[in-house]
Amino acid sequence: MSELQELSRKDFELLDEEDALAPFREQFYLPADTVYLDGNSLGVMPLAAKERVSAVLQQEWAEDLIRSWNDNHWFDSPFRIGDKIARLIGANDGEVIATDSVSVNLFKLLVAALNIQQSTGRKVILSEAGNFPTDVYMMQGLQSMLGDRIDLVLVARERIEEAITENTAVVLLTDVNYQTGHLLDKQTITDLAHEKGALIIWDLCHSAGALPIDLNGIDADMAVGCGYKYFNGGPGAPAYLFVAKRLQENLQQPLSGWWGHARPFAFVDEYEAAAGISRMLCSTQSILGLSCLEVGIDLFLTADMQLIREKSLRMGDLFLRLLAEQCADFNFGILSPIEPAIRGSQITLTHPHGYPIVQAMIEKKVIGDFRAPDALRFGIAPLYLRYVDIWHAVSVLNEIMQTKSWDQERYKRVSAVT
Amino acid sequence: MSELQELSRKDFELLDEEDALAPFREQFYLPADTVYLDGNSLGVMPLAAKERVSAVLQQEWAEDLIRSWNDNHWFDSPFRIGDKIARLIGANDGEVIATDSVSVNLFKLLVAALNIQQSTGRKVILSEAGNFPTDVYMMQGLQSMLGDRIDLVLVARERIEEAITENTAVVLLTDVNYQTGHLLDKQTITDLAHEKGALIIWDLCHSAGALPIDLNGIDADMAVGCGYKYFNGGPGAPAYLFVAKRLQENLQQPLSGWWGHARPFAFVDEYEAAAGISRMLCSTQSILGLSCLEVGIDLFLTADMQLIREKSLRMGDLFLRLLAEQCADFNFGILSPIEPAIRGSQITLTHPHGYPIVQAMIEKKVIGDFRAPDALRFGIAPLYLRYVDIWHAVSVLNEIMQTKSWDQERYKRVSAVT
Repeated sequence: MSELQELSRKDFELLDEEDALAPFREQFYLPADTVYLDGNSLGVMPLAAKERVSAVLQQEWAEDLIRSWNDNHWFDSPFRIGDKIARLIGANDGEVIATDSVSVNLFKLLVAALNIQQSTGRKVILSEAGNFPTDVYMMQGLQSMLGDRIDLVLVARERIEEAITENTAVVLLTDVNYQTGHLLDKQTITDLAHEKGALIIWDLCHSAGALPIDLNGIDADMAVGCGYKYFNGGPGAPAYLFVAKRLQENLQQPLSGWWGHARPFAFVDEYEAAAGISRMLCSTQSILGLSCLEVGIDLFLTADMQLIREKSLRMGDLFLRLLAEQCADFNFGILSPIEPAIRGSQITLTHPHGYPIVQAMIEKKVIGDFRAPDALRFGIAPLYLRYVDIWHAVSVLNEIMQTKSWDQERYKRVSAVT
Repeated sequence: MSELQELSRKDFELLDEEDALAPFREQFYLPADTVYLDGNSLGVMPLAAKERVSAVLQQEWAEDLIRSWNDNHWFDSPFRIGDKIARLIGANDGEVIATDSVSVNLFKLLVAALNIQQSTGRKVILSEAGNFPTDVYMMQGLQSMLGDRIDLVLVARERIEEAITENTAVVLLTDVNYQTGHLLDKQTITDLAHEKGALIIWDLCHSAGALPIDLNGIDADMAVGCGYKYFNGGPGAPAYLFVAKRLQENLQQPLSGWWGHARPFAFVDEYEAAAGISRMLCSTQSILGLSCLEVGIDLFLTADMQLIREKSLRMGDLFLRLLAEQCADFNFGILSPIEPAIRGSQITLTHPHGYPIVQAMIEKKVIGDFRAPDALRFGIAPLYLRYVDIWHAVSVLNEIMQTKSWDQERYKRVSAVT
């Protein structure tokens, strides 16, 4: 591919022919004639999910009923799936469980981290302003219970490092910002947190499954992540959480339901936390949800995360180059980093008419999403996206801008409101 | 049916012929030649669940993808299903949501109730010793956060009423005890709590779906319940919670994730609780789980809860009469109340060899469950159980005791341990 000549569709077809990850696409269901650039919000369905869920319904639930807790390993599933996820994020067996939602898991981890810090008297929970909203809301919910026992501090991305001080109890950060796609330097920030005596919780919702993560390599303390975005676990799939082995002893969290009990079938009145990561479980989980998530995770275990990252960045670079070639006249801003090293797996543009433009693209079966106030997000999921999809997406964007067909979407919206 | 003669199988066949609820059985999948008396732990599968879940997978997830949040009403589902459940427990639209687990919901409600009581200075959370363990564990988890801001008090069932005092902030009780099947008098206890200025949370896990419940009729404050027991919502189905309309204003709970926000798509940094029951939502829910639960709930909406209760009690009475006729020599204790008015929808026996006896029954496809230390539980789910199933169950129990075949199960268990 020449750096000098304008790109053509042919260039993208050639890239697809050479793509080692191309065969993965056949393992997913993609709607006809659709380019799906929203896998960072809800991943597509692995074809194997239908068979797996059907087996859980007919055999495990309907036929085997209550015996499935043991015979079909329902009881083990948060741990078994957690161990599999561990291999995708640089963790070890016994450090990850698949359970609950990201928000609920954050609550458990925040309190567990504060408990570890209790003797230090530190009160500050530090995060990024504009972090994924639910992370911030959970911090605020925690404060509604703990009052002045904690201080919440939100700072702009550029000020994170200087804001970590000897007063910081916990740093809670999302490595890839959901809006901008900016990728933080997890190693540097983790080192800095530890240097200052703070604990760090990484939210991997917008990174895991799209780029290599090595939690133990960077000596991370805790983490959470999402099952239904890049991991294709299905709508509302269970989330996961990570606690480094070295912190698991004496770990204490308040959502102490029956599944986290040392002897859950003893039915005693006194809670006694199970050993290790098990005590981070609360109570009965969606078995359908866990089973479906496992299908997505199993697929990722057969893929090379480094190849996924390389393809993702190459696709992002090409998206930006096509944008420069085809859409330079339309006043798009580029919110995501140009520099690949600090970019997650998405391209975010800004435009005053972002909403109707995204709607017009969806009309033409190129599905991205809009995030207020003015962001157009295009997520890149390399296991099922083709290079020609990137070509097609920008071509459609160009066509919409040329023809101003987004303007009709704007009028549609107004008339829908009135 | 004569009260004087011994019962025969024919008597039970006649009862089935006259049973107005009998046609419901055809809407469930029952494993061949099996009598399932564990619907109070995990309900059986409604046949319609397969089609519904399959549609969610293929159409809503795979085909419609992210648009399903609006187009297929995913976003409304906790409220829509909650409103349906409301009709089964005597609540109104906007008072119930289907979400999270019972344990997580209890945490939210306990804190919300304490917040309401804050100005009173009351510190006591009162519950029953031997309540369903996860309820007690969640109270203890809450105390691990709040320390001496709360006092937990567990009392024996007989002492509940006298233990409600002017110091009581919240009473948390399960109306049907999971172990004994004892049914509390919700009206009397609710009245007493209110008289003393306490709030009451009812855990309906072992009652809703098996007997009529009228939360607003008894002026209940809050409640939780289970989706996967009597409601047949599938393994690990979402739970539900109820908050009376009169308490919803200014309600404040700490698991304040994005789905409980007033403007969840504004992506602002400040949490602002949504109006009404919505603020009790935390974050993304299992859509597979919710969809499957709705199938079970829809079935119950077509049934008469009074008929369910009558059939349940009649089956329980017959179970006890058969036990007296066939198993009087085998030293069974009867833990559940003999008196129908204070009995839930289960018969609980005790026996020193309870565990191997339950195993031997399961070997013969009569599925109850064992609860430590010595309880044999037989749950009665009138929508899919036949009267002849009760006859068969006690006949099998009699046969096992006569032949002492449970003793082989005991040896099996010992050899499995060694």
